[in-house]
Amino acid sequence: MAWDVLNVIGTIAFAMSGAVVALEVKYDIIGAYVLGLITAFGGGAIRNLFTGIPIIDLWQQSSLFIVAFITISIVILLPNNSVALLTKWSIFDSIGLSAFSVQGAMYAHSIDLPLFAVVFSAAITGAGGGIIRDVLAQKRPIVLRQDVYLLWAVFAGFIIGLDFLSKSYQFYILFIIT
Amino acid sequence: MAWDVLNVIGTIAFAMSGAVVALEVKYDIIGAYVLGLITAFGGGAIRNLFTGIPIIDLWQQSSLFIVAFITISIVILLPNNSVALLTKWSIFDSIGLSAFSVQGAMYAHSIDLPLFAVVFSAAITGAGGGIIRDVLAQKRPIVLRQDVYLLWAVFAGFIIGLDFLSKSYQFYILFIIT
Amino acid sequence: MAWDVLNVIGTIAFAMSGAVVALEVKYDIIGAYVLGLITAFGGGAIRNLFTGIPIIDLWQQSSLFIVAFITISIVILLPNNSVALLTKWSIFDSIGLSAFSVQGAMYAHSIDLPLFAVVFSAAITGAGGGIIRDVLAQKRPIVLRQDVYLLWAVFAGFIIGLDFLSKSYQFYILFIIT
Repeated sequence: MAWDVLNVIGTIAFAMSGAVVALEVKYDIIGAYVLGLITAFGGGAIRNLFTGIPIIDLWQQSSLFIVAFITISIVILLPNNSVALLTKWSIFDSIGLSAFSVQGAMYAHSIDLPLFAVVFSAAITGAGGGIIRDVLAQKRPIVLRQDVYLLWAVFAGFIIGLDFLSKSYQFYILFIIT
Repeated sequence: MAWDVLNVIGTIAFAMSGAVVALEVKYDIIGAYVLGLITAFGGGAIRNLFTGIPIIDLWQQSSLFIVAFITISIVILLPNNSVALLTKWSIFDSIGLSAFSVQGAMYAHSIDLPLFAVVFSAAITGAGGGIIRDVLAQKRPIVLRQDVYLLWAVFAGFIIGLDFLSKSYQFYILFIIT
Repeated sequence: MAWDVLNVIGTIAFAMSGAVVALEVKYDIIGAYVLGLITAFGGGAIRNLFTGIPIIDLWQQSSLFIVAFITISIVILLPNNSVALLTKWSIFDSIGLSAFSVQGAMYAHSIDLPLFAVVFSAAITGAGGGIIRDVLAQKRPIVLRQDVYLLWAVFAGFIIGLDFLSKSYQFYILFIIT
């Protein structure tokens, strides 16, 4: 449950941030879809790769794909000046990052990976999509420039890896304070 | 059959475009080989990854490697001014993209992946190599800047995913109109 | 044995070079850890991917992770002007590259891959981490700009792929002359 909710929140936030960045650097409509989808699913894909889940499982998330697709379409249809406002996109980025890093850590922890791998999984699930987005838009990855982002992901990884949390509602709290 | 022909055409076109871009941004000879090979095989490697084929199968395409190697060598040996001409490389890029996207879609369709995955496979097989090439040459990926390219790949994915084509000659037609 | 020694040397050299580049382009502390770890482990991860070893095996190298972590911490704690000196980092880069390319070639050869794959494995293990580092720091990958680097890796791949060496001490010699 907690997993699904975090997944939807993270997907919407990242799809939004990817589409906004694409419009910001003057990519066109297809570029916005590509960047939105990559931002939303890239982190999870890399995490699957490194934790040994068949990457092909990605194709079973069709409802998430639709969610991302609709989100991006809305961003594209927004009038120009509201996109300019959204360009201060860091809010979406941090929402997406905390949702996905909590979820990545939960996942890695649930298959009993060592602590180091849990922390890595939190970091890559949370930050991976944004890093690929920034590379494709020729920007310096924001997570590497601003400490707070990744620190949070690492912190979430530690908390969950060390088993401090066990109930769903605690994951929500962790997400919200993040 | 159609598969093999498309493979050879796409490999030559992309090896060429990778080598030309490398020379354009003043990478040296090894750089031209690396970029040529990555452009030619990168898209297929990512597709294999996402559709669950063992990526190690790549090593069985030795004849294609040789084809790519010879193509790149020819580009390197060309006099400077003809490279300058080739720099208007978009022709190779679009040939490679259409050959590979048709082939990627055929492949994904043949293993019964859902429509969304067929479209993705067309797009990534066609555009993946070029995106990696542009990232390594520090350019904004051309497929994200120019709609037509990816639109074609997505279109080819839909047509094939929806099973409109079933005979070899139709794939050729699809390739040529592309 | 030779494998382990090369692994430790390559890991230290690359973790160092990644952290130095991160500081050079003004990433902060977390950025230095991320870039250091990626440079040290990225090449091996890609090699695992392409040679069919489960990428999850990466997590069993915990002693190497600790080595890399300590190395990066030292670089961060160094006074600014010594980092400025280290910025002429190419020494670490070439040490890491030769250690890892010899090791990558040994590995691919040991599982009986074809010659072409041995050469590729040498090149990607040696150069992969550095390429990802440069892309994330928005620099043109140095191995693509300077022939010598990759030539060495390819050369090491050929030598080992063709079975010219069979004793441990010969690997050390190959590493040192490189």
